[in-house]
Amino acid sequence: MAFEKLRKEETLAMRKRLIGQSCRLFYSDEPVKIIKARGQYLFDENDKRYLDCISNVHHVGHCHPSITKAAAEQMDLLNTNARFLHDNIVMYADRLAATLPEKLCVFYFVNSGSEANDLALRLAQQYTQHQDVIVLDHAYHGHLMSLIDISPYKFRKLAGQKEWVHVAPLPDTYRGIYREDHPNPGQAYADTVKDLIEEVHRKGRKISAFFAESLPSVGGQIILPQGYSTKVAEYVRSAGGVFVADEVQTGFGRVGSHFWAFQLQGEGFCPDIVTMGKPMGNGHPLACVATTVEIAGAFTANGVEYFNTFGGNPVSCAIGLAVLDVIEKEDLRGNATRVGAHLKDLLTKLQTQHQIIGDVRGVGLFVGLELVSDRDQKTPATETADQICVSTDGPWENVVKFKPPMCFSMEDAELAVRCIDRILTALTRPLSLTPGHIHKKCSSTAVSHLVEWEHSASYPAGSEALSHKRRKQASHLTVQNI
Amino acid sequence: MAFEKLRKEETLAMRKRLIGQSCRLFYSDEPVKIIKARGQYLFDENDKRYLDCISNVHHVGHCHPSITKAAAEQMDLLNTNARFLHDNIVMYADRLAATLPEKLCVFYFVNSGSEANDLALRLAQQYTQHQDVIVLDHAYHGHLMSLIDISPYKFRKLAGQKEWVHVAPLPDTYRGIYREDHPNPGQAYADTVKDLIEEVHRKGRKISAFFAESLPSVGGQIILPQGYSTKVAEYVRSAGGVFVADEVQTGFGRVGSHFWAFQLQGEGFCPDIVTMGKPMGNGHPLACVATTVEIAGAFTANGVEYFNTFGGNPVSCAIGLAVLDVIEKEDLRGNATRVGAHLKDLLTKLQTQHQIIGDVRGVGLFVGLELVSDRDQKTPATETADQICVSTDGPWENVVKFKPPMCFSMEDAELAVRCIDRILTALTRPLSLTPGHIHKKCSSTAVSHLVEWEHSASYPAGSEALSHKRRKQASHLTVQNI
Repeated sequence: MAFEKLRKEETLAMRKRLIGQSCRLFYSDEPVKIIKARGQYLFDENDKRYLDCISNVHHVGHCHPSITKAAAEQMDLLNTNARFLHDNIVMYADRLAATLPEKLCVFYFVNSGSEANDLALRLAQQYTQHQDVIVLDHAYHGHLMSLIDISPYKFRKLAGQKEWVHVAPLPDTYRGIYREDHPNPGQAYADTVKDLIEEVHRKGRKISAFFAESLPSVGGQIILPQGYSTKVAEYVRSAGGVFVADEVQTGFGRVGSHFWAFQLQGEGFCPDIVTMGKPMGNGHPLACVATTVEIAGAFTANGVEYFNTFGGNPVSCAIGLAVLDVIEKEDLRGNATRVGAHLKDLLTKLQTQHQIIGDVRGVGLFVGLELVSDRDQKTPATETADQICVSTDGPWENVVKFKPPMCFSMEDAELAVRCIDRILTALTRPLSLTPGHIHKKCSSTAVSHLVEWEHSASYPAGSEALSHKRRKQASHLTVQNI
Repeated sequence: MAFEKLRKEETLAMRKRLIGQSCRLFYSDEPVKIIKARGQYLFDENDKRYLDCISNVHHVGHCHPSITKAAAEQMDLLNTNARFLHDNIVMYADRLAATLPEKLCVFYFVNSGSEANDLALRLAQQYTQHQDVIVLDHAYHGHLMSLIDISPYKFRKLAGQKEWVHVAPLPDTYRGIYREDHPNPGQAYADTVKDLIEEVHRKGRKISAFFAESLPSVGGQIILPQGYSTKVAEYVRSAGGVFVADEVQTGFGRVGSHFWAFQLQGEGFCPDIVTMGKPMGNGHPLACVATTVEIAGAFTANGVEYFNTFGGNPVSCAIGLAVLDVIEKEDLRGNATRVGAHLKDLLTKLQTQHQIIGDVRGVGLFVGLELVSDRDQKTPATETADQICVSTDGPWENVVKFKPPMCFSMEDAELAVRCIDRILTALTRPLSLTPGHIHKKCSSTAVSHLVEWEHSASYPAGSEALSHKRRKQASHLTVQNI
């Protein structure tokens, strides 16, 4: 294919030689090589088409022509740093401000969600003059040293928990300490934060921030119970701390009904700091911190400049503006609401056919499917989840997640659910293959999308056990992309 | 002008309202609004042309058409993350490897020099299993929390020095503890690092890394004395640490004779980790860490994935490749050598006419001009440097720096030097204006470039004292851009 410059084996050999192996490939045994994309579809070097169920970064669709046009036009005109006065940065900040509660009206532009969270931590500590941070269990807030410290998902595998970091229970009403049957799980989980604050105070320490994703993603596509954030914010502020909403994965309309996932907690709730990233530039490195006049003022008061070489440059802001335009013009929030509801509905129906589906949850195009081997015990079906090679997350890696480009269609949702149905049917049916064999076949070729989806779609639902090849195809659904 | 969307006053008002004030504007009293650029020239909203003497980020020239074309073509084709196999990342790593010593052959792509330095710190600590870091006095390595800790330029104004950070003297042979008259300043300064290591060991602590810019920039455009890095590397490695060369400001041929500034220390010297950033994507957020197989291996061995959402994506790598192509095709290293030598020569001649010029130093298009009110005492002429509104750096903010786009021409160098001549002449001549007045007039309008340079260039050299307006024009030369 014209767009391929190296043979796949050569690319792979060079990758292994030249790129740090900590940077993992999807399906490293037999990685997929994608060379072009459009909308929700990816194409490999043989022009095979894949349906993308997880690229939340490519929010308005891969290679959207409006974004490319905006980028190219501004690149041709000017791309200085934000120490120069420029229209794009202020127009973009103004547009973002319009999506947020009034008090979140000061912006800092950076290059990644990690840079945004690092700055949020600095802002919180500078404003409160306190050090300690409360985070949710299993949280991930970024790859920088400061963020590994506040990410249980990472620090448990690395340097361990610092004395200034405190871990609150994940407010998971499916398998957490308070569940659906609790009369007020929002209050109950918020009280665990209150207890933690008291414990911190007993140690003579002080809280600078409560830091949480508005919908914990690596934690397992968790929907926070109603009332939780408002109560937590009240407790944290009483302790002199601030509430940081990490919207890096969840912002920009993914939840459909609202522009920001924290808004699901009601109009009465407003964080003190909001961080944003991934979908913001549709793949271009662009991220941001929004905060209040008071917090920004305290940061300015230290008298030290904050300079981010690329942050808020005219090209990044032109791209950011174009993304906002497309979200509006193509009614992608409306689409997320409609398609997300349809997807959840189909998955809920599927739950009646497959005992292994313990829970279906989500909002808009942020959906999780939790697999369990026993519905009463809620035993995580980690092995099955692993065998079917879909995107897994959560403490037991048994939550299949959907967070596709926002142009995902009704038909795409139907196709994805049909494929999951077939995979689960095949995996729970007596087979001539050992699970180990299935695992090997799947994990060696699967990718975050549906391979040859046209063929899969026409595959008769009630036919005999899937052939190796077809089973492989059907299992190519989603992969982890945190 | 067609490209201006808001009136300047409106842009300024919105900027003050919406963007954190810690993000400073150049000449905040009366900031310049730049709306287009090409090569080494910037244009404001009234189509006034400015010569850019300091934008090292826009390395191959502002808005280079080859870079825009490469970006737009790849944006239209594909922009996934680096978990997918792709040709661009491996081809780019291969091209970078060809510029480096053989042992620096493993790459990690990130979005900013700060992200690169943060990762370098992690790599060093993981590999050595030691914590402590030695840095040079006045150094700046980035805006992230981990980097403020290792940047004396920042931590002295903020949280202070951590117990694991140790500051070595800046090897400045103009005003440091060992000067030009020392028989072997390289060895003498390296020995200060050796002493520091011994002091660290006496405290029962262990060195993970010596971290330094290959040409300390914020430190005052310092050229490290010969032999320094080789000796320091020897001492640091003996202590079980690694040598990190921060090439974020200095790499990609700026020094002309070599692709990397660390190579000025001779063929025998090779760092263990090299970080790169600013010029790498000509304004696009792109940065990188290069290291050895051994260090990368130790990082992989911790078993934890390193995932950077945007790092190494096909668009960033396409841009990086295009930048390398332009550097080669337009012989920008040759240009940096020739124009840099001419600029240094002209400034050295100027030194014979202006007592205030204490030192002229530099290599390629990385040049510093140090102003002193007394040549023997080397008293920093901070106020004069401030009054003439040029880019200042160094501990006393009295070093005027040049680090222009690499397409800077002989004529540009001549013009810049003529203007400095006029500014210094005017400032040291009896005037009817108070210095305070001059300062106000200058700092309120100056910018990192020459305003209306065509007019300035034709301004007769021997005429009467400059009018306010003309003095303003002539003083528009450079500003700080770290």
